[in-house]
Amino acid sequence: MDIEKMTGNIAQDLEYLKKFTATPGEGCTRLPFTKEAREAVDYLRAEMEKIGLDVHEDAAGNVFGILHGTDPSLPCVMTGSHYDSVIHGGNFDGIGGVVCSLEVARQVIDLGIEHKRDLVVVGFNDEEGMRFGTGYFGSGAMLGHRDYEYTKNFKDVDGVSIEEAMRGYGLDPEKIGDAAWAPGSIGHFIEAHIEQGPVLDQKNIEIGLVTGIVGIQRYMVTVHGRADHAGTTPMDMRMDAVDASTKVISKIADWAREKADGTVATVGLIKVQPGGMNIVAEQVEFTVDIRSMNNDNISDIANRIRAALDRECKAMGGSYEIDTKLVIEPVALDEGMLDILEESCKAKDYSYMRLPSGAGHDSLEIGQVLPTVMLFVSSKDGRSHAPVEFSKYSDLAKASSLMTDLIVKLLNE
Amino acid sequence: MDIEKMTGNIAQDLEYLKKFTATPGEGCTRLPFTKEAREAVDYLRAEMEKIGLDVHEDAAGNVFGILHGTDPSLPCVMTGSHYDSVIHGGNFDGIGGVVCSLEVARQVIDLGIEHKRDLVVVGFNDEEGMRFGTGYFGSGAMLGHRDYEYTKNFKDVDGVSIEEAMRGYGLDPEKIGDAAWAPGSIGHFIEAHIEQGPVLDQKNIEIGLVTGIVGIQRYMVTVHGRADHAGTTPMDMRMDAVDASTKVISKIADWAREKADGTVATVGLIKVQPGGMNIVAEQVEFTVDIRSMNNDNISDIANRIRAALDRECKAMGGSYEIDTKLVIEPVALDEGMLDILEESCKAKDYSYMRLPSGAGHDSLEIGQVLPTVMLFVSSKDGRSHAPVEFSKYSDLAKASSLMTDLIVKLLNE
Repeated sequence: MDIEKMTGNIAQDLEYLKKFTATPGEGCTRLPFTKEAREAVDYLRAEMEKIGLDVHEDAAGNVFGILHGTDPSLPCVMTGSHYDSVIHGGNFDGIGGVVCSLEVARQVIDLGIEHKRDLVVVGFNDEEGMRFGTGYFGSGAMLGHRDYEYTKNFKDVDGVSIEEAMRGYGLDPEKIGDAAWAPGSIGHFIEAHIEQGPVLDQKNIEIGLVTGIVGIQRYMVTVHGRADHAGTTPMDMRMDAVDASTKVISKIADWAREKADGTVATVGLIKVQPGGMNIVAEQVEFTVDIRSMNNDNISDIANRIRAALDRECKAMGGSYEIDTKLVIEPVALDEGMLDILEESCKAKDYSYMRLPSGAGHDSLEIGQVLPTVMLFVSSKDGRSHAPVEFSKYSDLAKASSLMTDLIVKLLNE
Repeated sequence: MDIEKMTGNIAQDLEYLKKFTATPGEGCTRLPFTKEAREAVDYLRAEMEKIGLDVHEDAAGNVFGILHGTDPSLPCVMTGSHYDSVIHGGNFDGIGGVVCSLEVARQVIDLGIEHKRDLVVVGFNDEEGMRFGTGYFGSGAMLGHRDYEYTKNFKDVDGVSIEEAMRGYGLDPEKIGDAAWAPGSIGHFIEAHIEQGPVLDQKNIEIGLVTGIVGIQRYMVTVHGRADHAGTTPMDMRMDAVDASTKVISKIADWAREKADGTVATVGLIKVQPGGMNIVAEQVEFTVDIRSMNNDNISDIANRIRAALDRECKAMGGSYEIDTKLVIEPVALDEGMLDILEESCKAKDYSYMRLPSGAGHDSLEIGQVLPTVMLFVSSKDGRSHAPVEFSKYSDLAKASSLMTDLIVKLLNE
């Protein structure tokens, strides 16, 4: 494979696709079921057809390009990512992976590989969930995890439901079930994506081999104290919700550090009521987000938080509640495919490391059901979901080259 | 002295005065230079005249009733409090003290006490500072601490300046200097006030002998970290402003408790930016309010906060700023008068304790210049600045009786 040529193809695709944004000059805004989504899909269709793929769009707005193998009875090998973006996002998140997979198909054709299985390149719709507050819509529909009811349940900021947006886009939400692939029809899924974190960039490593997608637990904690005058209420007559809460919050990051295995824990929001300089806090709300490849670590930190809240609220004389907002189990990616990718890295002398993904991806939805693997390419300064998001075209080409090695193997298994 | 009769007089005054509110049925709202302020002052004038005091109002809206002594060359003994209230406040804060002092004059007359010094009963205007965001306007003017410029510098929510409000009320702001009493003309100041805190009520004690008014230091602290993705950024690559801040905030109340001398410290507000569940905090702002009779304790806690911020911000790799919002030195009240009040409590078998005032009062302004003492009466549940504010008329009568004993002594010194 000619990495320079692959780099050029990927650069050309991405430079073209970045035009399809609702916010030109202010990053990529390509929300599902919009004019920009249509333009991106039309570009992908045209490129797929140009290289000889059999193209179709499904009832969920996903676009597929199939390079037929000699034995249609075998499960296919699928590769791709998503073509939607967040609002004011970058030109790499999602679409970079779609373009890497498109380049895999070009390579398989260029190399003249005979293959038994179908190679399927996919551009998923609405992974971000930005417009309707959801996520993994296209990949979920492909797995049969979305139905007509679902499309009626979520609305965008203008009050437009998924159902209405689909109809406006020319899709029939009542036929969303048609997007589901038959069980057993997909053998493997392989996704390239930008890291969206700082690890590869800081370590100056080209390729991340993603061992899994972390589990997540999210909580909203409310601590109840009592509002009192900050001057006239002695310390031993207070129920200070800030004092009790911060005695818990200040330990949470340390508990994650202690695990020293990539486990992370974050309190991103603290709200104090009534919030006066001279009033003892009556109530504190704070969020907790814990992620780890090891579900026991997540549970352990959650349990320590509960124990600390028990202790501090008892000491204060107050109370607390915990509202569980999200529980996602970790997904381990396919060891066999990871080993093949690692061998390729060594053979090609690409720098690489194994690491978990701290963010969700289509591979999170798919990896729960099918053998799945992901590759990360380095994100400059770890920045993403912003116009400054940047990854090197040559790194994307290297990921595409590694995927090609793997996929060529799988196509004839 | 007949405590039952005194209780009846105080009850009658306060029941009458509570009618003068801009928010009937929703607590006392008696802002300075309003119709309600005029009505309260007119009532006080009428009662003062009824018992034979020589009444006048000054250029700042304070009302004075003078019971002349035999030697006008001696400094007077002054007693009183303020007649204004906060918005939706209670019927005791301020006005309860004015009425106690009025009752002192009644007692001195009823007891037929011969006295050399003038006894001056005062109702101060605008102690709360609620309307113009100031405070101690009337008592400050009496001490010569307010001038015409000052009246132009502060405006209410409708844009009306103190100057304009004074003119509308029939006062000449250019003559505010006339409100100042000659240096040496006031010998002592004695104020009764509701506690506005829970100490006396919780300990079931009738009378608080106020040893001083605490010093206050207030700070706004801003801690700067860096916003990062809560999933993809490993713990050792973060600059988490919440983690660093809460490691400091969680110790502040303990540092005050450690002093075990009534020192209090409060973080009443925490604001996190950007405040997303899944975003490491870029910035945390929090307030600190520290109060103590011992200024060294305040400074020590402020220094510990700085040292902890140095340490945690260095560990995080971030930075911080501290903006000093308020510095007030503690004011010690007059030991000699406190001793006399304590002897009276013992003689009358009133339950009492010495305690500092955690809130500011006219005595804070006056105590910086003149021998001053305060008595607290118990506030039910420590509540004030609210319609539920409540103190017993009989406790107010006991405070008035104690003040009468003290003042009778002072009048002939």
